[in-house]
Formats: sequence, structure tokens, C-alpha cells
Amino acid sequence: MNSVERYLADNYERALADLKAFCRIPSVSTDPVFRDGIQEAAEFVANRLKKAGFASVELLDTGGHPAVYGEVIGDPTLPTILVYGHYDVQPPDPLDKWMTPPFEPAIRDDRLYARGVSDDKGPLLIPILVVEAYLKTEGRLPINLKILIEGEEESGSEHFEPTLERNRDRLACDLVVSADGAMWRPDRPSITVASRGLVALDVTVTGASKDLHSGRHGGSAPNPIRALTKLLASLHDSDSRAAVPGFMDGIKPLDPTILTAIDAARFDANAYYRDIGSPKPDPIENGGQLLVRQWLEPTLEFNGIYGGYQGPGTKTVIPSSASVKITCRLVAGQKPAKVVEAIARHLETNSPAGYSLQVEPHGPGSEAFSVDPNLPGLLAAESVLEELLGSKPLRVAMGATIPIGTAFRKHLGAEAIFFSFSTSDEDYHAPNEFFRLSNFRTGLIAWTRLLGRLAGHPKLEPTMRL
Amino acid sequence: MNSVERYLADNYERALADLKAFCRIPSVSTDPVFRDGIQEAAEFVANRLKKAGFASVELLDTGGHPAVYGEVIGDPTLPTILVYGHYDVQPPDPLDKWMTPPFEPAIRDDRLYARGVSDDKGPLLIPILVVEAYLKTEGRLPINLKILIEGEEESGSEHFEPTLERNRDRLACDLVVSADGAMWRPDRPSITVASRGLVALDVTVTGASKDLHSGRHGGSAPNPIRALTKLLASLHDSDSRAAVPGFMDGIKPLDPTILTAIDAARFDANAYYRDIGSPKPDPIENGGQLLVRQWLEPTLEFNGIYGGYQGPGTKTVIPSSASVKITCRLVAGQKPAKVVEAIARHLETNSPAGYSLQVEPHGPGSEAFSVDPNLPGLLAAESVLEELLGSKPLRVAMGATIPIGTAFRKHLGAEAIFFSFSTSDEDYHAPNEFFRLSNFRTGLIAWTRLLGRLAGHPKLEPTMRL
Repeated sequence: MNSVERYLADNYERALADLKAFCRIPSVSTDPVFRDGIQEAAEFVANRLKKAGFASVELLDTGGHPAVYGEVIGDPTLPTILVYGHYDVQPPDPLDKWMTPPFEPAIRDDRLYARGVSDDKGPLLIPILVVEAYLKTEGRLPINLKILIEGEEESGSEHFEPTLERNRDRLACDLVVSADGAMWRPDRPSITVASRGLVALDVTVTGASKDLHSGRHGGSAPNPIRALTKLLASLHDSDSRAAVPGFMDGIKPLDPTILTAIDAARFDANAYYRDIGSPKPDPIENGGQLLVRQWLEPTLEFNGIYGGYQGPGTKTVIPSSASVKITCRLVAGQKPAKVVEAIARHLETNSPAGYSLQVEPHGPGSEAFSVDPNLPGLLAAESVLEELLGSKPLRVAMGATIPIGTAFRKHLGAEAIFFSFSTSDEDYHAPNEFFRLSNFRTGLIAWTRLLGRLAGHPKLEPTMRL
Repeated sequence: MNSVERYLADNYERALADLKAFCRIPSVSTDPVFRDGIQEAAEFVANRLKKAGFASVELLDTGGHPAVYGEVIGDPTLPTILVYGHYDVQPPDPLDKWMTPPFEPAIRDDRLYARGVSDDKGPLLIPILVVEAYLKTEGRLPINLKILIEGEEESGSEHFEPTLERNRDRLACDLVVSADGAMWRPDRPSITVASRGLVALDVTVTGASKDLHSGRHGGSAPNPIRALTKLLASLHDSDSRAAVPGFMDGIKPLDPTILTAIDAARFDANAYYRDIGSPKPDPIENGGQLLVRQWLEPTLEFNGIYGGYQGPGTKTVIPSSASVKITCRLVAGQKPAKVVEAIARHLETNSPAGYSLQVEPHGPGSEAFSVDPNLPGLLAAESVLEELLGSKPLRVAMGATIPIGTAFRKHLGAEAIFFSFSTSDEDYHAPNEFFRLSNFRTGLIAWTRLLGRLAGHPKLEPTMRL
């Protein structure tokens, strides 16, 4: 154990206290009610960067929630990496399903439970703590390091690309290392080399201009729940795949590297359904087919539906409107705007007379991403993980979206790798989100070694682009 | 104007104050949160009966919310009527759509706005005030009068029939006169001679045992909103009629008397869609067809749907479950339990593997009802309305449900007529419920005269049964 790693071990309890303090801040980015939490979290990060020894720390005005920037530039001839993370979190509801309150961090079984602890407060705090440890012990970093922590990742990163664009000189780097992302499974080291894109929209169907009595009007009045459910039922085929003309346009062939990883993963479909606690479909697909669906196929998912009375008992009402929230995961070749267009056109074409239809996209969405398989930074990250975790990490895709990959490539000309220590089973968009503290400790050592390894690397630039 | 009517005119402001006080009590029967309001409203009614001069006033233990009973028995040789009403009200939500708070009665344009004022607090207060006026001026009523005010009408009257059964001797009467019900239109006197039945159920589809991240699991995990909307889409045909095997079983032929009334009503379909503020369907049915749908056809209406995230912005979640609230209006011949069975069977048959389905009926429901067209009490009520309102009232059916008709016939052997002064456009299951105070005043005179007219009637028993 070198002096940096020893410092981190000696100061672990303080690090944990920092993480808890960070998790107490309700920095939900999608809901304006949490505006104060957003500001407080941004300031928390900025202060923590300053305390760690970063220079040029400031809140960047993005036009939306602020991003936090800081840098440690020692020797301009060394390579420079840009660390990425986000301080915003998912909404905490349904609140009644949390065993302990979402913004009151609680440790059970060496796991820290809190909204945002796994996505992405725990993982992003790790490189900050590592930088502090280097500066406190060695007085310098082995490379130059910039850090950019945004506050809109969970709400579509609407202002992220313009912020990169406006700050392209300041953010210039040889490689982006994202602290966001997730290990695929708790039992097997992995590194994410591809992620699906995302686009979100709300759909509302309106009938009468006010709620009506279902006795008086039942049979003659429009019922927007009826119209909406008929419309939604037209969006998928019997295999639960999107059945929307134009939705699949432009999709590129499957990446053979990832198909190899899928074979190696030996994903167990029965265990999967047992883990998520759902009855098995019939027929059940094999594990490989399920992974292809998770990693390499686009989706059209309903995230929420609402309209009319939701309380106990009954209310004999015909509601004025009913709404659904939709997100689509996109694969290589799909354009977010085209996907929204295709869905809107399908809904408009199929919307019955007697109702009005409103389709409202949330932000521009993001395309799918994949990493150059020969990228030196990727190879360095793999070697650190293999050394620490005992086996070569599996290269995996992720079904979830990390829109930053394409954004950094586009605006900074830099490739990105994912080096995150959360795990995808940590309920990060559900109640009782947690972060394995064993991974918090592993992550501290891994980032320490990664910084050294990257410094020694002859060249961080990609050798090819996928 | 006789002395009773003069007394009512002289004491109108006090009557209005009573009505406001009654409407301040949040007596929502479907939601346990309002339990105190239920109790307070029952006591309000009991106290008001005592003050009016009723004897034997008491709260009847029903096993659920209490019913209120009182009587004024002068001369046992005179006919006895039983007045019916209900003190419970619909839930007030959505609260943000109310111009003034639902439990703070406010007068605008000679209308009193409050939750429950039209359904049924205003209409039921009228006969109490009329009894008081008779007793204060003449010291007696022209007939014997019993009154029964229940507290579960808006939640399915689960304990009403057992209460009638247990109290059949005490409640014995020659005729039931319901203060609940509604005039069909504000511009034309009407009397309701038939109403649809009602049955209510909740349906929940569950996939995984917890909410899942739609990026990680999208494509492989069950989405209960997708399954539920597909299921719901199978419940109606393209004309929005229930398409459930067994649903229509036992339906009796249309009542020709009511078809005549529908012709006479000259219902304007274009005006209807304008009034409810909805776009017109295409093709548009004629007014007569719409009225047949409202009055004489069964429905399967979705009253509420919910599942997943409903807040601002997006949340990339696949919810664990999604639910819908359904009520069906029934016509003559349909059995509530059979209708629930038919729907449950259809849903179970069509429910996909990979989900669990839960169908939960609310209470036993109620059958459709119709009044004997030659019932002397009906003829008396029609003559009073014609005298006061200037034209013979139209005999109408109502789409809404007044389950008491069949209940009184079954348990007391008594026929019921509807003599209500609310109007069906008074938003009684929607925000901004109101009661026309002109109808409050008319109702006071009408009930005064109805009591006299019924006393002089040779026979209140029906001459035939429909």
C-alpha cells in the first residue's frame, strides 16, 4: 500500500461522513420543488473541491442547474483527463416504500442507503477524495486532472452540450473518465463500453373540458382513459417491441464484440425474473436474448400513467384528461428527434375524433454511445480492475443511458471511458437506493492506481473510432 | 301563499345559513381520512331533525357510517311516507380546480358552491325545513313522515340494505320519496322514473416486485402499464361499448315509455359536446342515440388510472404495478355480481404471462331501477311540479344510479319516487359543485304541496309493477 492508499484508508471514516453529508441534500433535478437542494448540492461539490486542493473551482452558469468545475494542473506536458459526474438525483417517490427516509443516509450491512448514493454521489466523490489524498501525501498528481460535475443528468442534461461548447478550451483534455455508469453485476468485474440513448416525452389525451359524472354522462361523453389506453395498446407488438412506423429507422447492425460478451456472460433468465420478483413470461426467452434486449435493442417504455380518481374506494367520474410518460432507449443509428416524430405521428394518426392529443418531448434526448475497443485509456482501466478484482473485466454494454459519451466526442474531440463503482442492482431509480461501501473502498484504490497508470501511458488518444 | 309557505319565505335566510353550515362539514364517505366529517355530518342532521320537531331521532348503527332516522307520526290512519337522502359527499379532488374551497360554501349568481350542496345536502335539507314549517305553523303534518338519511351513498351503500332489513318494521311506509336524484335539465321540469344500476371494481396488474430502472431493465422486464393498457384496450369495441363476453347477459328490452320521452326531449348532440367542452366525435350520433346511451345502455367506464411516476419532468422507471378504477352502469336485467364476474373472467383470460392480475370489486353494487308509470305518488308529484313550474314534467330516465329504488322495494315492499331539486348540470361529481338557490326555494314550496297532495291521495300503493 503506497502513501496515497494509506492516506485514504486512514481517512475512510471522514470520507464516509462526507458522502453522508452529500446524500442529505435533496438535489432532485426534475422537480422545481427541489431547487434549493440543487443549489446546495452544487455548492457542496464546489466547497469539497476547494478543500481537496482543486484550483479554479467555480459554478458554471449553464442556463439551467449549475455545473461545477475544478482543475489540478501540475505539468502541462503530462496528459490531462477530465473527470465527469453528476450531483443531481432521481425523485425519491414512492416515499412510502423507503425503509429509511431517502435523504437521511443509513448504513445497513455495509451498504449506505440514500437517494443518489449510487447514482452518482458515491462514485463521483471517489476521484475527489483520491485527488485530495495525492495532494496531501505527494503534493502533486501524476497527471493533470479537470473535473466537471453537472446537475441535470437525471432530467435529460438539456444544457450540458451547450456548456461543453461554450467551455471547450477550458475543458480540453486527452481523455474523459466518467465516474457515472455502473458495474454490471456485483459478482463479476465489468467495464461498460456502450450505452443506449434516451428520449422522453409526455402524451396527454383530453376529452371534455372538465371532469364529468360517469352516471349522467357515461356512454355519451368521451373517456380519455379509454382513448389513451387504446392508443398506447397500439404502440407495441405482441413481443413488447415498439410497433411504430419509422421508430427503427437507421439502426446499425449489432456490434459483434458485445455479442461475444453476451455469450460469455451466461445470463440466467430464470434467475433474472426471480431477482426482479416477477412471474415468468411464457414463452420465456433465453438469457442471451434478454441481454440483447437490455443492451442492444431500443425500447418504448411507459414510466407513468395517470388520470381521474386515484384515492381509496370509488369516484364515479369521467376525467377530463389522461396522460402517460414515455421514455425510449435508443441504439446506434437512431436519432432522438426522429424517434419522437415517429411516435407523435403514430399517435396522431391513430387518435380518435372527439379528443385532443398533446405530445410534449422533454429536451433533445441523446444518441447511443460506444467506446473504441483499442482505446489506451480503456486498456489502462481494464488493467487496474483486473489487478484489483482478480479477473479481466467483462466488456459490457448498458441498457441505461450515459449521454456524455457522444457529447464529449462531439464538442471536445475526446473519447470517454466509464470507471464507476456503483453496481446496476443498487436500485438507483427506485426506493431504497444503496451503494456498497466495499465498492466505495475499492473505488478509492482503483482511482488512485488509474491516475498513475494513465500518466505512464504513452498515448491516450484513440487509435480508431467505432 | 299559505301559512307554511309564508313561514318558509320568512325564514329563508336562516335556511340558507343552515345549508351553509351543513356544507362546511367534509363528509366524504369513500376516504377514511374524512371519518370525523362523516360523524359530524350525521350529528348535524340528527340535531337539525330534533330542532325541526322530529321524534325518535337517532343515529342507526349500520356497521359502517351511521344513518340518521327521525319521524313525525300524527295520525296512524293517515298514509306514511319515508323520505330518503344522504349526508355523505364525493371526494373534493382535484382541489386546484375549485374557484373557492370545496368546504367553504360561497354564493355566486344565486348559486351556492360547495362539495355536496347539490348531491345531496341541499335537496335533503328541504323536506326537513318543510316539516319544521308545518309544525311551527300548523302544529302537525298532513301525513305521517319518516326520514332516513344515510352516509354511504357515494361509496356504494354497502350497509344500506342490511340496515333496511334490520329496521323493516320501524321504516314501514306507503311510499318512499327520495330527496336524492336530479332534474334532468335546468330549462325543463322533469321527474326521474328509471335509473341505471352500478357496480365498481379496481384492477391492478403487477410485474416486478419493485420499481425498476427503465434503462437497465427496459426491454426485458415486465411493464405493467403496457400490460394494463393492452388489457383495457380489449374491453371496448370501436363504438366504445363494452366488448366483454357475458357483460350484456339478461338485459331486458328497452322501455317504450322512456323512448317516447327521448323523442320529446329533442336532445341536441352538438349542444351536448359544446356544453361539456369536448371535440365532436366522428361520426357524431344524433341526440336521441346519445340519450339512449346515457339512459338505457350499460357502460364500462374507467374512472381513474395510475401507475409509476406522475410528477414534473421524467423519471426513468418501470413501475411495479399499474391500476385502473372501473365503474359499470347497468340496465334492467343485468346482475351486478355477474357483470363483475364477466369482466374478471375476460381480464384473466387475456392477461399475459409474466404479470399478476388482481380484480377487487367494491361492494355488491346495485341493479337498475324503474318506477311503475301509474303509481299514485308519481302522479301526485307530477301534478305539483306542473302547477309550480308551468308545464307537465317530462318523465326521464337517468344515467346515474340511485340504488335505493330496488332496495326499498325489496326490503320494505314500498315503491319510491324521486323528488329532487338538484339539476344534473350542477357538477356534483366534479370541482365547483353548485346548487341553484332558485331551486332551493322552489323545492321548499314543492315539498310543502307534495305533503298535502299525498295526504289527500286515496291510495299510495302501486297499481302495477314494472
